[in-house]
Amino acid sequence: MSGLSHLIFTHPQIDELFSADAQVRGMLTFESTLAKTQAGLGIIPVAAATVIAAVCSELNWNLEELAQQTLLAGNPAIPLVKALTRRVNQQDAEAAKYVHLGATSQDVLDTTLMLQLQAALSFINNQLLDLQNTLAELTAKHRDTVMIGRTLLQQARPITFGYKVAAWLDTLLRAEQRLLQVQREALALQFGGAVGTLATLGAQGPAVARQLAAALQLAAPVLPWHSQRDRLVDVAAALGILSGSLGKLGHDLISLMQTEVGEVAEGAAAGKGGSSAMPHKRNPVSATFLVAVAGRTPGLVSTLLSGLSQHEHERAAGAWHAEWEVLPELLRLTAAALAHAHDLLSTLEVDTARMRRNLDLTQGLIYAEDVTAALTPHLGKAEAQQLVEQACQQALHDRMPLRDLLHQHPEASRFLSDESLRELFDPRRATGLSQHFTDEVLARFHAPVPTT
Amino acid sequence: MSGLSHLIFTHPQIDELFSADAQVRGMLTFESTLAKTQAGLGIIPVAAATVIAAVCSELNWNLEELAQQTLLAGNPAIPLVKALTRRVNQQDAEAAKYVHLGATSQDVLDTTLMLQLQAALSFINNQLLDLQNTLAELTAKHRDTVMIGRTLLQQARPITFGYKVAAWLDTLLRAEQRLLQVQREALALQFGGAVGTLATLGAQGPAVARQLAAALQLAAPVLPWHSQRDRLVDVAAALGILSGSLGKLGHDLISLMQTEVGEVAEGAAAGKGGSSAMPHKRNPVSATFLVAVAGRTPGLVSTLLSGLSQHEHERAAGAWHAEWEVLPELLRLTAAALAHAHDLLSTLEVDTARMRRNLDLTQGLIYAEDVTAALTPHLGKAEAQQLVEQACQQALHDRMPLRDLLHQHPEASRFLSDESLRELFDPRRATGLSQHFTDEVLARFHAPVPTT
Amino acid sequence: MSGLSHLIFTHPQIDELFSADAQVRGMLTFESTLAKTQAGLGIIPVAAATVIAAVCSELNWNLEELAQQTLLAGNPAIPLVKALTRRVNQQDAEAAKYVHLGATSQDVLDTTLMLQLQAALSFINNQLLDLQNTLAELTAKHRDTVMIGRTLLQQARPITFGYKVAAWLDTLLRAEQRLLQVQREALALQFGGAVGTLATLGAQGPAVARQLAAALQLAAPVLPWHSQRDRLVDVAAALGILSGSLGKLGHDLISLMQTEVGEVAEGAAAGKGGSSAMPHKRNPVSATFLVAVAGRTPGLVSTLLSGLSQHEHERAAGAWHAEWEVLPELLRLTAAALAHAHDLLSTLEVDTARMRRNLDLTQGLIYAEDVTAALTPHLGKAEAQQLVEQACQQALHDRMPLRDLLHQHPEASRFLSDESLRELFDPRRATGLSQHFTDEVLARFHAPVPTT
Amino acid sequence: MSGLSHLIFTHPQIDELFSADAQVRGMLTFESTLAKTQAGLGIIPVAAATVIAAVCSELNWNLEELAQQTLLAGNPAIPLVKALTRRVNQQDAEAAKYVHLGATSQDVLDTTLMLQLQAALSFINNQLLDLQNTLAELTAKHRDTVMIGRTLLQQARPITFGYKVAAWLDTLLRAEQRLLQVQREALALQFGGAVGTLATLGAQGPAVARQLAAALQLAAPVLPWHSQRDRLVDVAAALGILSGSLGKLGHDLISLMQTEVGEVAEGAAAGKGGSSAMPHKRNPVSATFLVAVAGRTPGLVSTLLSGLSQHEHERAAGAWHAEWEVLPELLRLTAAALAHAHDLLSTLEVDTARMRRNLDLTQGLIYAEDVTAALTPHLGKAEAQQLVEQACQQALHDRMPLRDLLHQHPEASRFLSDESLRELFDPRRATGLSQHFTDEVLARFHAPVPTT
Repeated sequence: MSGLSHLIFTHPQIDELFSADAQVRGMLTFESTLAKTQAGLGIIPVAAATVIAAVCSELNWNLEELAQQTLLAGNPAIPLVKALTRRVNQQDAEAAKYVHLGATSQDVLDTTLMLQLQAALSFINNQLLDLQNTLAELTAKHRDTVMIGRTLLQQARPITFGYKVAAWLDTLLRAEQRLLQVQREALALQFGGAVGTLATLGAQGPAVARQLAAALQLAAPVLPWHSQRDRLVDVAAALGILSGSLGKLGHDLISLMQTEVGEVAEGAAAGKGGSSAMPHKRNPVSATFLVAVAGRTPGLVSTLLSGLSQHEHERAAGAWHAEWEVLPELLRLTAAALAHAHDLLSTLEVDTARMRRNLDLTQGLIYAEDVTAALTPHLGKAEAQQLVEQACQQALHDRMPLRDLLHQHPEASRFLSDESLRELFDPRRATGLSQHFTDEVLARFHAPVPTT
Repeated sequence: MSGLSHLIFTHPQIDELFSADAQVRGMLTFESTLAKTQAGLGIIPVAAATVIAAVCSELNWNLEELAQQTLLAGNPAIPLVKALTRRVNQQDAEAAKYVHLGATSQDVLDTTLMLQLQAALSFINNQLLDLQNTLAELTAKHRDTVMIGRTLLQQARPITFGYKVAAWLDTLLRAEQRLLQVQREALALQFGGAVGTLATLGAQGPAVARQLAAALQLAAPVLPWHSQRDRLVDVAAALGILSGSLGKLGHDLISLMQTEVGEVAEGAAAGKGGSSAMPHKRNPVSATFLVAVAGRTPGLVSTLLSGLSQHEHERAAGAWHAEWEVLPELLRLTAAALAHAHDLLSTLEVDTARMRRNLDLTQGLIYAEDVTAALTPHLGKAEAQQLVEQACQQALHDRMPLRDLLHQHPEASRFLSDESLRELFDPRRATGLSQHFTDEVLARFHAPVPTT
Repeated sequence: MSGLSHLIFTHPQIDELFSADAQVRGMLTFESTLAKTQAGLGIIPVAAATVIAAVCSELNWNLEELAQQTLLAGNPAIPLVKALTRRVNQQDAEAAKYVHLGATSQDVLDTTLMLQLQAALSFINNQLLDLQNTLAELTAKHRDTVMIGRTLLQQARPITFGYKVAAWLDTLLRAEQRLLQVQREALALQFGGAVGTLATLGAQGPAVARQLAAALQLAAPVLPWHSQRDRLVDVAAALGILSGSLGKLGHDLISLMQTEVGEVAEGAAAGKGGSSAMPHKRNPVSATFLVAVAGRTPGLVSTLLSGLSQHEHERAAGAWHAEWEVLPELLRLTAAALAHAHDLLSTLEVDTARMRRNLDLTQGLIYAEDVTAALTPHLGKAEAQQLVEQACQQALHDRMPLRDLLHQHPEASRFLSDESLRELFDPRRATGLSQHFTDEVLARFHAPVPTT
Repeated sequence: MSGLSHLIFTHPQIDELFSADAQVRGMLTFESTLAKTQAGLGIIPVAAATVIAAVCSELNWNLEELAQQTLLAGNPAIPLVKALTRRVNQQDAEAAKYVHLGATSQDVLDTTLMLQLQAALSFINNQLLDLQNTLAELTAKHRDTVMIGRTLLQQARPITFGYKVAAWLDTLLRAEQRLLQVQREALALQFGGAVGTLATLGAQGPAVARQLAAALQLAAPVLPWHSQRDRLVDVAAALGILSGSLGKLGHDLISLMQTEVGEVAEGAAAGKGGSSAMPHKRNPVSATFLVAVAGRTPGLVSTLLSGLSQHEHERAAGAWHAEWEVLPELLRLTAAALAHAHDLLSTLEVDTARMRRNLDLTQGLIYAEDVTAALTPHLGKAEAQQLVEQACQQALHDRMPLRDLLHQHPEASRFLSDESLRELFDPRRATGLSQHFTDEVLARFHAPVPTT
């Protein structure tokens, strides 16, 4: 969190979910649910669980002190469990025996992380659905808006703007599937005790784990995963891909906003993107944030991925700690990007006239392939190609529209009537399956049940 | 590929799949299948498709020349399609018109990559199944082999070696699910023509795409993905996680091979890991390769992830090219790691006696928690804890086994009989659910149908 | 900043330097120094500069509002310059004309960053000097403390602990040189106006730039570097290497702290690293933080490095924004690591007796090479090697000290007297140049002027 | 090395320097120089050194076999030293005793790497000088070629093309300094024996190291650096920054080559960048390779940086091996990029007329700030700004050149004569210090001695 720009790279909801206070509340949720589960199974007295749960619902924990103690203890669970035990002990010495029974620090912290991820991914998924809606509207609205397609940043052949947006949307439908999958599979309870064997609980360990997972609405893993962290990388990869895809969208839009292209502009909110010194500028703002976020997330995913191999034995000395701020950071950045993308897309100004004009920049050369195809039946492919290539060279040289040149061309004009020339140079005809693909993506978006 | 060490970081099968020759054959497969599909749909003459397919099955392409032309053309499809067209033209000028019809360079190259991925992932999956088998045997064999569990590299409490191996295996079962999923979902046909709209093929485009995908056994995407590269990152992430998990396994084993731990050793193949100058050394070899590979893959995944946002408009000027060597490199490294892991695990020497002896290094302090639990009913938790803590301090100070000290301890000995002391300090009793979890993982491994 | 663990990964001084308040003060320092410099050169009225400077020294800026406006404006300089101009205008409408004259947002922000880096790197350099002092003391103290050297985590041959520490220190002397170099060369004024041409200031531009740089104690670059960001990567690389080197130190210490090695321990501050349930554990704490930080910094360096190529034209749309939080994060992490390293090293407990005992774990095999060397003059190299190899095998098999075995060995004992055996198996003799290298590093450390 | 595109991402010279053959020759150079140095110091017989050196100059080593043995031995030095000793032994059994005396595998391999780096960096530096020359010519040629400067991809204010090129050149002058510095400081001999203490050589160790370094023209380090790898990261960072800066250059050029901008084009070598189907396209080729390389190098630098903390104790089990292919890859990519950049820049087509035309795209709005400045003395700043802002809005709305509008504007025309309007809207006047900065960079480039 640096300087005045911190709001760009975070989202208040995610900040809240990963605040010190929320982490404490998550840990206390773990402890109270554990106690209640154990009481339900007759492992600890119901009265003890009641006291523990009551203390866990207290709000006044000294976050500053806990953070300081974390520095010495090595992780936040140790001081919190101590503080909790002390408070329980003040109310009921017997109950204090049963605080945190069978659990280890990493159980508390990892499960708390999973609860936070649950809420954060659910929030992010809602943001994503909002964005998909916005994109679907834009797709439908511009289903037939013709523009040039660009490859290697060169004008290539016409597409529709709807098709362009549909491609973004299609990618975000896959992003949603990834999010749903990690929510379903990667969010697993951590509960293993000191070395992951639940040694303290004897034969009742599996039942406690199962019920605890159910109570917390987390998946029950086959065995504890203190040093097997692939699930977290699954989450990270899903977020990294999502933010990267939003970056592509931002990148495309910045490119379309260029002065020389000018096909879209960011909605002109007061104070947004303007430059008093340079009144002609319509600077991208939200779109630059998307690109910036996409520049930052790969390094974070890579950090988690690098960590995988360094979780030695039954608990890692360092690789675990390296995760603590990185996953929250990924969530913050992704949520920020989703918010920026929504702002951007829901107020995007689309200059369809400019899109149309830009199609004429090459004076018809973008249709050369079509002309060749039209002449081939008459001249054979080789001769047709040669004729068109020469015509194009001349058109470039004379800065003359290719259509006019062909109209005057002694040989070409024999086979290409005015009518057929008009048709050949009509961009609406040249967009191929743009509309078809657009419709397919929209159908997929509107399909009742998401399919993988 | 550098110097004498290149065999460490690759696998001949993957080298072969990504050789220049294989890439050419892949591209020709695309072109011949495209022609046959179009002939089947009546788009091009059957005779033309027959000639094209025949030429595509020729073997003698000048790879050196094609590579040189790639430098000028910007991608390998351009010179190959030219060479193909030339050859077809020599046989049948009419057929030459229909070479590569409706396709663009990226269609050929991306689909070829997908075919290569199909074969490579299938190969890697087989390697993974072999490795799982080896791990399952080792798990079963050491189901009851007691050893110390270590957290933060400190001896913590007993586990079994079977449990440790089962945890590796469980992770690799998830790795298999990831591979299967990307094989099923991420390997998609690329077919869109110049700007992804299949403009040349008119209304028959979707049918061509559908049948082409089916013929090549690739998924049929909703729309072309020339600049939407999330599928490739899915593949990369699956490989990165797998190689990272193998690195963890290697890391654990190197740590267990340490002179001071000595619980396992790499199988002593002739010339492996020895040091003539230092005869006592049993250097890890395969395990170091696993760690090395796991150190290299995150940067490659991150490269692909970074690329996502830079695929501008309908085809990227650079981000696409950046992928070309990186995915093959990830496959090579992962396949190499799987081979090393198999070598390592199938010849691993396990020193169960040393595992047993290492449990005594703390002279019984690893059971302190159990003693406290045993004394609590008699003394209350607080007093029991205090007694045990003091006993531990004294044991450490006097270098005396805790059990002996407790045996002589005036108060402790009142509650702890010889029998109960023997039991408390028996590591087999202290392994908690190690065997239970081991059995669960093995059951999962042996389950007829893999579940996600 | 996440949860209770945020203090682990930051340092209050760096937090303060990169707070919103500090950024505002930095920007105002730029603006007031700019005005004064321009007044000194007669470009603007002295009275205007006086008013501007006075307003720039005001403290009560609405940080919350500025942060909100940053979201719309796209960067923090735009709202601040507006707010500043408004305030100046309230006092003196004429002076308001001269606020920010000739400058652009990126000038203000980049120069502010440079001022922050100046202070932060200077602070970090002081931390580094403190740490070097601590390491130098430890080096000197343990100049002659014999321990085993380990390669590939196998015991190899004896070194001294002083030598080990000296190697860390030597690396940190290079780290200091890197920091000094970037402070000297990479911290450059940014001042170029809208497109880096200082167009507004006419021929006086260079003089303003030169004097402004001097007044702010920054290097004067040959030309503005709005989209040439290599200097920032130099800073990032220096920090990444430093934090990586601290991670190596932490990694080594965690490894030495292992229960089975036990040669060092973290100082036992109250509440540090202990485990009430497992009293035998002396968990690493500060050392794990070092490893965690070193796991996180490479991804951040890579982010800045990736950005280099994406700063298009005269100012980047995204790559610039991606830097804003990443460099501060690198500084925070590095400063945190330096503080943890200092804590760790200044209270490190070194168990020299255990170091000595661990030398005996191989029962003398670590001296095999020396025995061979001693026998070679008598037997020739080949025969000597063979004899020693067989003796080692037997020693391993019989679990007998090699020295005792040689003492009884009919042939070896003919050439190796009791005296020479004692000497051969004396670890102090076997440490080679450990002390020599130690002395060299200390001499370098104590040298009056740091040399590159 | 994948498929047909491998030539894009490498350079034959670097391939040659890092071939298996070159690595073997490097190792043999180390061994023969070591023997000769030791003979010169009287440590080994001169006759032995003569034999060893003679065998080291033999050429017929079985690279395939050595590569296979490397897989078992764990590194390439072990089998090579064995093969070498065997050959020496065949000639002179006495001499065989002195092969590799006092050295360890890592000494041979690291020093060989350093010799390879020496040659590779020297080659790369020459490439860089060639490129600088090309850029300097282009800078001088276009010193006065006016074009628009672009920020956030929006047209901002005029610059010159010479200034743009000068900014690239200035960055590459710093890149050269970095390369020279790492060549001077980071290329250090590795010579430490088993654990870095040179134990075998006794008091003569330092002299051997010093003379060996001198003979190999490498820096003599204070102590061995088997597990202190910061020097390698210095090399990697210098390469990463250089390739990143070339990527920025490529990125800028691709952006200028866009159809809608069209200010430059890649030289039209036969078969380069053209598209037969789309004759209007002038696809970037070399420039895309620059962007692709810059996308790949950050992950490699990050890999080496991540490794720093994982070189445990006196030699790493994995982190060392992870370096072996990564540094050569970085060199290959950087050399490839330099070659592509040279091709690109030495044949670049610059369309100065188009640059001039593009300045008119905003119909004069890019001079709005200048008009305000010109009116301020007459109207005061506030009123001047208001007038110009309204004029700009109207110009945008009416698609009328701002100059014409001001000419007709009742108030503006009172203060702005035809003459002053002509001057205000002359882009040559508006380029500020473009030429000044250009001259400064060229002076720096032509300065006899590079300064840091």
